[in-house]
Amino acid sequence: MGKGEHTRTVILEAALAQASESGFESLTIGSLAERTGLSKSGLFAHFGSREDLQCAAIDAAAQLFADTVMKPAFAAPRGVPRLWAMFDGWLGWTRRGGLAHGCPIHAASVEYDDRPGPMRDRLVGHYRALQQALDKAVRIAIDAGHLRADLDIEQFAFDMFAIVLGYYHAARLMDDARAGERARAAFARLLADFAVPGALP
Amino acid sequence: MGKGEHTRTVILEAALAQASESGFESLTIGSLAERTGLSKSGLFAHFGSREDLQCAAIDAAAQLFADTVMKPAFAAPRGVPRLWAMFDGWLGWTRRGGLAHGCPIHAASVEYDDRPGPMRDRLVGHYRALQQALDKAVRIAIDAGHLRADLDIEQFAFDMFAIVLGYYHAARLMDDARAGERARAAFARLLADFAVPGALP
Repeated sequence: MGKGEHTRTVILEAALAQASESGFESLTIGSLAERTGLSKSGLFAHFGSREDLQCAAIDAAAQLFADTVMKPAFAAPRGVPRLWAMFDGWLGWTRRGGLAHGCPIHAASVEYDDRPGPMRDRLVGHYRALQQALDKAVRIAIDAGHLRADLDIEQFAFDMFAIVLGYYHAARLMDDARAGERARAAFARLLADFAVPGALP
Repeated sequence: MGKGEHTRTVILEAALAQASESGFESLTIGSLAERTGLSKSGLFAHFGSREDLQCAAIDAAAQLFADTVMKPAFAAPRGVPRLWAMFDGWLGWTRRGGLAHGCPIHAASVEYDDRPGPMRDRLVGHYRALQQALDKAVRIAIDAGHLRADLDIEQFAFDMFAIVLGYYHAARLMDDARAGERARAAFARLLADFAVPGALP
């Protein structure tokens, strides 16, 4: 990694930590200069504007999610075991990814959901990519004979994602020690409702 | 309604509209003075501090939710029809409540989930009250013979709430025209999984 690339990585890690704490609207070239100890002009050399910086931070979060959740899950056996690997990886991903304050992509999606512009477009793009990865994993579970062929894949993805959002709420705002258990029970019910009889242990 | 009470209502409506647009952290005595055309000292006469104002706005949102969703639902027939009335009322409540930018309580719960203090405590309190109202409605559906007596009521409430969060995401960030249909399908599956055989139409 060259020096410029290394500096860019350091800036994005700091940006992500700050966005996880205080939201993406808190990200300014000034606040990040303070946090990283770099000069404002140095930051401008890497990111031409505040908006560029915010978008790059969202992209970095999506990359971290892909590396922390999706890549390991695609190494799990095809079908329902892989869906479980995705689901379990998803629940704890921010802690494992070094983000102390919850999922910055989720926080941004509430922050920007009715603010048209590059940040919102970026978020929609990342969620579409996630949806496609989920669709693919569900299709593989159907081909493996684990899930029913008549399953509505988009509905399944909606239901799975909703459970993760319920988990974030229960675990973070409500400090519910059983949040993980609740989420896993909901996902097990989703799988059971669409399993090929006898295919799941 | 006296003049003082009327002014307080006007301020809280403006605060709620602003929080729905830009988040509760955007609420300051100054920004609200500008929005309402009242003087800062006039605002301080009603709310001693910015934090008082933020907490009062969250309480006003919770009251609006109770009036818009829960009260009409408790007028629906006991059991599963009442649960459907709650669920359907919940999905569209911000529009009917005159809030153009989504649920301010949900936005605040992401904004404050790791900021200890009065706002976070308030949010947790409102969600606990909602949970209790849900628990009560589910218990009535069990007593009415619609839902199974061995149903885990807290799990049911977790699952129902998760679907609403999935709906918010799909309808608001993803502009998914089928978000309501997806959410209703998920809730129908939840009810079907715990219905007494033959009890639901």
